[in-house]
Amino acid sequence: MNKIVQCVPNFSEGRDLEKVEQIVECLKSKDGFKLVSYEPDADYNRTVVTLLGDPIKIIDAVTEFTGKVLELIDMNFQSGEHPRMGAVDVIPFIPIENVSMEECVEYANTIAQKINEQYHIPIFLYAEAAKQKSRVKLPAIRKGEFEGMKDKIKEEKWYPDYGVNEMHPTFGVIGIGARIPLIAYNIDLGTTDTKITNNIAKAIRFSSGGFRHVQAGPVYLDGRGHTQVTMNILDYKKNPIYRILETVKMEAKRYDINVTSCELVGLMPKGALLNSLSYYCRVNGIEYNKEMSFDEMTKLAIKYIGFRDFDSLKIIEANI
Amino acid sequence: MNKIVQCVPNFSEGRDLEKVEQIVECLKSKDGFKLVSYEPDADYNRTVVTLLGDPIKIIDAVTEFTGKVLELIDMNFQSGEHPRMGAVDVIPFIPIENVSMEECVEYANTIAQKINEQYHIPIFLYAEAAKQKSRVKLPAIRKGEFEGMKDKIKEEKWYPDYGVNEMHPTFGVIGIGARIPLIAYNIDLGTTDTKITNNIAKAIRFSSGGFRHVQAGPVYLDGRGHTQVTMNILDYKKNPIYRILETVKMEAKRYDINVTSCELVGLMPKGALLNSLSYYCRVNGIEYNKEMSFDEMTKLAIKYIGFRDFDSLKIIEANI
Repeated sequence: MNKIVQCVPNFSEGRDLEKVEQIVECLKSKDGFKLVSYEPDADYNRTVVTLLGDPIKIIDAVTEFTGKVLELIDMNFQSGEHPRMGAVDVIPFIPIENVSMEECVEYANTIAQKINEQYHIPIFLYAEAAKQKSRVKLPAIRKGEFEGMKDKIKEEKWYPDYGVNEMHPTFGVIGIGARIPLIAYNIDLGTTDTKITNNIAKAIRFSSGGFRHVQAGPVYLDGRGHTQVTMNILDYKKNPIYRILETVKMEAKRYDINVTSCELVGLMPKGALLNSLSYYCRVNGIEYNKEMSFDEMTKLAIKYIGFRDFDSLKIIEANI
Repeated sequence: MNKIVQCVPNFSEGRDLEKVEQIVECLKSKDGFKLVSYEPDADYNRTVVTLLGDPIKIIDAVTEFTGKVLELIDMNFQSGEHPRMGAVDVIPFIPIENVSMEECVEYANTIAQKINEQYHIPIFLYAEAAKQKSRVKLPAIRKGEFEGMKDKIKEEKWYPDYGVNEMHPTFGVIGIGARIPLIAYNIDLGTTDTKITNNIAKAIRFSSGGFRHVQAGPVYLDGRGHTQVTMNILDYKKNPIYRILETVKMEAKRYDINVTSCELVGLMPKGALLNSLSYYCRVNGIEYNKEMSFDEMTKLAIKYIGFRDFDSLKIIEANI
């Protein structure tokens, strides 16, 4: 059975679209994996790339891609709203099929060693790949950003995991990690009141006492004329979508507000969708078949979870 | 306006009921506060005392009570299932009316100084009264218990907050603290299946990814013939009862199980009940009057939250 990982390199250019094209070129039409998407953001001055496929092929291609970025981006002349410490800022590996988290940690180490040997760029390992507790959370590593890294890396506490304690002068450093998939999920509310929306967000988000793996906040969508609870679900197994959605409905009730629909930003793993569909099938008295097709899943997701702008390619595995 | 605190001293005798009576005698029919209850537990070999009233009067009486305990309990001959580090093990102060948490921290310091001066018992301050982060959680202080404290207190890290670094040879040490009220809350399920009950408990408890301030587990009640999700709510403002109850109902649905009733162990503050009643009034289209009487609250609590064995004296403020 083929091993499938998701790999989501982020690089520090999102304005010069010609340069973005030159960089992602080496990830297109390759054997063994798919370039699912790349999304340049001008405000952030950053591009998020999503790859899906064979981990070994991805390691080779992302190493090549890093060389291209090294050639084209000089961090001494880069600025944007998103914090960053390198021209390629992060490379996370995410297990999808027939791959364990331990293997993803190995892939992180393999590519870290390759990149460091070829380009002399120092590497920090983060998330599940972290070798020190203080490096589990990326923001702790990235604090001080490119500009501060020159000195930070000299502190014994911040010696890199691969390479010498000398920042690359034009590239900076990279964070390479392994983690489970994040789900970027938004719930639409039939109101324009962001204060109420914030109260509802507080009920579910960890920082206000809510679910342990949920980060959430209110946002008003000018174009659509209503608010959303926008969130990241950091562990969809422990905090499944249906439980968050039903809790939001429970809270909305006290304000006499309806949940009108919801949306997924980016992709989600099949497992995240199925564990919510099994709930809704059960409580609606419908037979749940975990072998159902992607089209069937999509139909049920729209009907019972209320996803808008949803199609089967939103499910990671449907892209394979 | 009168200041009202709850104070819940725990002492290390729950078997010799004559001794228990001798000890609590000095807390009975006193001016300015009420002895709400004392509950000796033979397995634990421990008695939990609940006092309610004027903080200054309580400080004086609990100091006297500590002297009585010193006279009657020798920890060198005490054992039981509950961990303990002193003959009086803990003295928490809980703000109820017209009292801030800061004031409760002051009361903790006042009684700590008094007890230490009069009886030479070393005191550790915990929870909101802790002066060091490592002392916020009581179990960290209590680790090693009475038997281990003789050596532990000699370590610089574990010098007491009041007194010298020498354990009292027969009494041990006391943890004195300030905290918000805990709510001990159980939800009855119409099943005998503890595995399902455990799955439901996991959905709400922090340690499995659930609500931040909830500790929960499954228990089978032999006498009643059904299971319960039994829990402590450590912060009822951030994790209100209604939200936990509705989440348990949501989860129970997928197993086709009903929530049959629920119960409160000990007391709860009026505010904890009112924030849930305001939810149920709202979603049931009933007018919510926050000035309602204790009897009215009790009626609504039984009707909408489903409390069994409930009366108005379960509300802390109704005892004042």
